[in-house]
Amino acid sequence: MRTIDVCLTPELLHLYNLENKIAVIVDVFRATSCMTTAFAHDIQKIIPVAQIEECKALQQQGYLAAAERNAMKVDGFELDNSPFSYMNPSLAGKTLAMTTTNGTLAITQSKTARQVIIGSFLNKKAVTDYLLTQSHDVLIVCAGWKGKYNLEDTLFAGAVVCALKNDYIIEDDSALAACMIYDSAKYNMIKFIAHSSHVRRLARLNLSRDIEFCLREDIYDVIPVLDNGALVKLVTD
Amino acid sequence: MRTIDVCLTPELLHLYNLENKIAVIVDVFRATSCMTTAFAHDIQKIIPVAQIEECKALQQQGYLAAAERNAMKVDGFELDNSPFSYMNPSLAGKTLAMTTTNGTLAITQSKTARQVIIGSFLNKKAVTDYLLTQSHDVLIVCAGWKGKYNLEDTLFAGAVVCALKNDYIIEDDSALAACMIYDSAKYNMIKFIAHSSHVRRLARLNLSRDIEFCLREDIYDVIPVLDNGALVKLVTD
Repeated sequence: MRTIDVCLTPELLHLYNLENKIAVIVDVFRATSCMTTAFAHDIQKIIPVAQIEECKALQQQGYLAAAERNAMKVDGFELDNSPFSYMNPSLAGKTLAMTTTNGTLAITQSKTARQVIIGSFLNKKAVTDYLLTQSHDVLIVCAGWKGKYNLEDTLFAGAVVCALKNDYIIEDDSALAACMIYDSAKYNMIKFIAHSSHVRRLARLNLSRDIEFCLREDIYDVIPVLDNGALVKLVTD
Repeated sequence: MRTIDVCLTPELLHLYNLENKIAVIVDVFRATSCMTTAFAHDIQKIIPVAQIEECKALQQQGYLAAAERNAMKVDGFELDNSPFSYMNPSLAGKTLAMTTTNGTLAITQSKTARQVIIGSFLNKKAVTDYLLTQSHDVLIVCAGWKGKYNLEDTLFAGAVVCALKNDYIIEDDSALAACMIYDSAKYNMIKFIAHSSHVRRLARLNLSRDIEFCLREDIYDVIPVLDNGALVKLVTD
């Protein structure tokens, strides 16, 4: 039977063998929520890069560019890290270069996986439905915060593990714990997560609207997938 | 106010500044439970070492020696990693060299802390009572399993965080999540932890009696503390 596991932060990725696995990258607040939203609004391609300099170089080649550090937009870039910024119809068909504090790094560090897809609460059902059609083992990679564990990405990992637990073998305690945490929190995630470090960080920046939106479940039926170093919309069927 | 945080595995220790902190090392199954039991039965000193070779060298100098790898005793050593082996009155006053898969490594990796103490459910109240008398920040270091997260050490970390949460600032999500997990599990930890990876590993080795014992709370009023590279009984007053 297939296995499912959870890597709680990219700092622990070296303990996992990504080869032949599907990696689901999650950065709920807010990178993977933005990416999901962007593809739901018909962006054509997102090039995730780890460093601001790489993002700037792509911008200078003519791409749209988004850069966030410490939850704020970096000066000189067009787009920030709020999902509401990606609902703009003018982004349809465009290619965007993107760098964020945690999420894009988790993507670039996971690229040895068989397939890298992007998960968020916004496309949770699309992700779990897709995984159920696949025969490969799954590793959910939580982006965390600067290498440390965070609650919101664990919550999403737990939601996926809980949804798939009858069809996959849970190998490690990280997946078990994530599932337990989601089970405790699922009926009121906003309240549950109110004391988390990132919610406090975002609330100080008046980003409560982003927090609420990023915790909405199953509103977009798209899955971004890494293809030759860039995210595109996954075509299934 | 003092802060309390949880390092979920020694692989994440480099993200924390141990300087001027009290590090509480926990390896519930079973190293720190054995150490607590040994000091409750008047062992004089335990020298924790990371490698089997170091342990063997100390044995050749005449020390008693305990070595465990993959939950089993290593051939050629006197003692294994079961707390019941440390209830032997003949150990009183002795010095023991000890190496285990995870716990002794977590100790040696934390030695830059201001103080390193040993925690387990067996001496949980002694540990929390002691910490409340101290003014320094606290980092609970979970030994994990070969670098990965485990449930039982997180449970203990959560028990300590829950006990101290009115007197310490919780900085990171790892401490919040640990506290949530302990709150869900505290009325039936054995059932809660039955599916964890290490319980399955130990159960295969017929070590259910060890598991039950290691989850008993507050039965010993001793705290092992690192002093010049060796654990001794902490003298408080």
